[in-house]
Amino acid sequence: MTHEALSPELEAVVARAAAAAPVFAATGPADRARALVAVADALEEAKEHLVGIGTRETGLTEARLNGEVVRTAVQLRLFADTLVDGGYLDARIDYADDDFALGARPDIRRVHIPLGPVINFSASNFPFAFSVMGGDSASILAAGCPLIVKAHSGHPELSDATAEVAAAALTAAGMPEGVFQLIHGRQAGVDVLKDPRIKAGAFTGSIGVGRLLADIAASRPAPIPFYGELGSVNPVFITADAIAERADEIASGFVTSVAGSAGQLCTKPGFAFVAEGSVLPEAIRAAAGELAEHRLLDPRIAKSFDERRRAILAAPGVRPVIEGGVRFDEEGHGWATPTIIAVSLDDFRRGKEALVEEAFGPLSILVEVPEGTDLAALMPEFYEGNLTGTLHLSAAEATGGTENAAELRALVEALSQQVGRVLFNGWPTGVAVTPAQQHGGPWPATTNDSSTSVGTSAIKRFLRPVAYQNAPAAFLPEALRDNNPLGVPQAIAPAGESKSWGRAFQN
Amino acid sequence: MTHEALSPELEAVVARAAAAAPVFAATGPADRARALVAVADALEEAKEHLVGIGTRETGLTEARLNGEVVRTAVQLRLFADTLVDGGYLDARIDYADDDFALGARPDIRRVHIPLGPVINFSASNFPFAFSVMGGDSASILAAGCPLIVKAHSGHPELSDATAEVAAAALTAAGMPEGVFQLIHGRQAGVDVLKDPRIKAGAFTGSIGVGRLLADIAASRPAPIPFYGELGSVNPVFITADAIAERADEIASGFVTSVAGSAGQLCTKPGFAFVAEGSVLPEAIRAAAGELAEHRLLDPRIAKSFDERRRAILAAPGVRPVIEGGVRFDEEGHGWATPTIIAVSLDDFRRGKEALVEEAFGPLSILVEVPEGTDLAALMPEFYEGNLTGTLHLSAAEATGGTENAAELRALVEALSQQVGRVLFNGWPTGVAVTPAQQHGGPWPATTNDSSTSVGTSAIKRFLRPVAYQNAPAAFLPEALRDNNPLGVPQAIAPAGESKSWGRAFQN
Repeated sequence: MTHEALSPELEAVVARAAAAAPVFAATGPADRARALVAVADALEEAKEHLVGIGTRETGLTEARLNGEVVRTAVQLRLFADTLVDGGYLDARIDYADDDFALGARPDIRRVHIPLGPVINFSASNFPFAFSVMGGDSASILAAGCPLIVKAHSGHPELSDATAEVAAAALTAAGMPEGVFQLIHGRQAGVDVLKDPRIKAGAFTGSIGVGRLLADIAASRPAPIPFYGELGSVNPVFITADAIAERADEIASGFVTSVAGSAGQLCTKPGFAFVAEGSVLPEAIRAAAGELAEHRLLDPRIAKSFDERRRAILAAPGVRPVIEGGVRFDEEGHGWATPTIIAVSLDDFRRGKEALVEEAFGPLSILVEVPEGTDLAALMPEFYEGNLTGTLHLSAAEATGGTENAAELRALVEALSQQVGRVLFNGWPTGVAVTPAQQHGGPWPATTNDSSTSVGTSAIKRFLRPVAYQNAPAAFLPEALRDNNPLGVPQAIAPAGESKSWGRAFQN
Repeated sequence: MTHEALSPELEAVVARAAAAAPVFAATGPADRARALVAVADALEEAKEHLVGIGTRETGLTEARLNGEVVRTAVQLRLFADTLVDGGYLDARIDYADDDFALGARPDIRRVHIPLGPVINFSASNFPFAFSVMGGDSASILAAGCPLIVKAHSGHPELSDATAEVAAAALTAAGMPEGVFQLIHGRQAGVDVLKDPRIKAGAFTGSIGVGRLLADIAASRPAPIPFYGELGSVNPVFITADAIAERADEIASGFVTSVAGSAGQLCTKPGFAFVAEGSVLPEAIRAAAGELAEHRLLDPRIAKSFDERRRAILAAPGVRPVIEGGVRFDEEGHGWATPTIIAVSLDDFRRGKEALVEEAFGPLSILVEVPEGTDLAALMPEFYEGNLTGTLHLSAAEATGGTENAAELRALVEALSQQVGRVLFNGWPTGVAVTPAQQHGGPWPATTNDSSTSVGTSAIKRFLRPVAYQNAPAAFLPEALRDNNPLGVPQAIAPAGESKSWGRAFQN
């Protein structure tokens, strides 16, 4: 693959981003923090206007989108604080050491710098929180990387309106021209991703498109990192004792998690494993009484969900717990009510092809397992990677003191191996935006499971380390200076310590 | 690409590694630390035996290899301390927070876990420090990942002997079977890299082979991270004032850095930019008086270096400063004395094709630049990524107070953009093994410039984050428990703080 010339319009976009890179990288963290907060404020001020466009374009409810704007603003503000804290720079200072174990060592100091221009492919299902100014964009800008957003085709007008608000706020906050630009069209996104001036990509969407883009990023003459958050079926394991203790609570939590946002969430629980003969299906039927019809994001997603749902219902041994359905209106929009089905483990194994793939919409599958099933072994049998895995335990089981504790520990271990987040007695939807959050997981949950797209660690994706050896103070980045003008955490390795390395473990 | 069956022998190797993964991951950090120190001790005890094989197979001197064994042992001991310190786990605890800005937040705790089995392709030019038990292997084992080393074909006997020593030490230290295995042959390495049970790859070697393997890793059905350290020409910029101040010191340092280990180091300075008419060539000729002939690692490397050297000498405008040469003995081994040439910037530009590519051996090019040349702009003109970039400044320039300070700052900035380590008044060879070290850099210096293969951060390549939400203490990894039995650093996000996020930057 050689680099082809961009269209004049895209060339201007990429050239502006490239020109902005050194200027943006040189802005102080407090200035970037101020700009992020300005964007947050501006989005909240424009909420009514933006949400009006969003409900029309996406079919998501006003309440949901209002909440999403707040979440988006909170994400931007969290990164403002992250920037000023400076821990994300992982600043390290090794003082020169004449007594170093391998002969005199120089002064070495290491910090993280921005990668350069990044393209972010935004998502359909979070028109604010994973779109134009969502978490990926916030972490790219926080890192000091010029951002090019490829708008999702599902909400082009909202994308333009959001971009207008954000661009004005960034400019007013003194950020250089070219730090943020919006483009439309899949081919335009691919062309930009291939450009040698682009240094990383981010993406939230389907496995198919994510893989396509990841392959493009990896096969460039100079490969770049590509952070894609793709598909997940988010298995849930519910013990018999948990059901005995609180069947109604679990049933209603499950239904809410499956039905919320019409099931169009990457963390929707796609499977729940329960004991054969459990009362959970009954409790679910009771909990599901008043479920409303919800428009799916766009006709393509609706059609695809309708097909997946039909295929699943046609698989052998499948019994509807809540039948649900999809109704198409004159504009081709699909309106869904939740579907929950039950199937025995044997039939699940037999119908694996039809059943196991993600159904993006309000549908979930109860798998009824015989007593004595090795649950830990089920995980690798059916899934590669997932964003989340959930356990519902009884109060006694949660103490780790019950007879089945070893079995439960093995299941937690198996989940840890295959997911990015292990939950207890909760539901995977509603990802908290906090410092310890991990929104990622082994392929195909993501293209890169050492990273997260939610939480403060998300900024690390767009930075790389540089060390300075024996640098005079005048030429050191501020974060590495002895007088520490930014007040960032600095990990100091003093002289003389190397001779004790490993001594505590000498035989 | 679908997965093909491995040969019975390789299948056994990979199956053993996969079976060892959960057991090894469950070992305590202190136990792994003890095992690493045991390997270090065993290598030092076997030094004479191993170095004897090494000198014969690689042509490197006894002094150099003795030093390398010590370095290898120090690396292992450094990782022992890294493990017990526990900072590399980046343990984070967000307490549950009913007042969270987006509604009640659960308790979320995040830690890093080992990826699983890793294959490490070892290097030719560091038969200890980047080979069977070198830095990559040490960081893989420290991370808790079963290790399969693909031996370099340049020192198969030493690889076997080292593996025997290491395996015995690991077993004696109680590590599970299958945590460390050695294989031979490039195809065997490729086959193992393709196996779905392998979760990451590491590599030190040429751009060609590194890219081949990186492409294999990226195009697997489930892609995996591949950490390749490839080629670098390590540009050096020497100011006129630095030469005026200490020409002899610079000349002798330069010659030593180019000639050491017969120039077969990834950090050898391949280019030095100096002012036209400088006395440096003269000083280099004086410094080079007694340079000895040195055997190159193997006949293939010797032949390739000989060809590169001839092509460079044949380029227009090239003037030898030290002629040097390569002599072939009856066994096909090449014996080299250092070659240093000078060329004007104009001729360098004209001869770019022939001159700019890495010459793996004792050869370096002085590029003589006219006064007023924009040095910062030269970097992107000639190079993509490099491991290092070096500046030699005068004492006055180092204060940042001279007339050319802005120009020098721009050059430092340009170097930061294209290298992993920026050095001042030193030489890039001799990479210190310390916490702040960064041995990496943009493509083609590495396949992944967000990582380092030297220094304690190297362990991060083989870990991924997992978060636990509302996990009962009994099911939490030790590093995340409130009573912190491992005594690792835990970053705590208390309840209530989210409402102040960004407040400092509110307009």
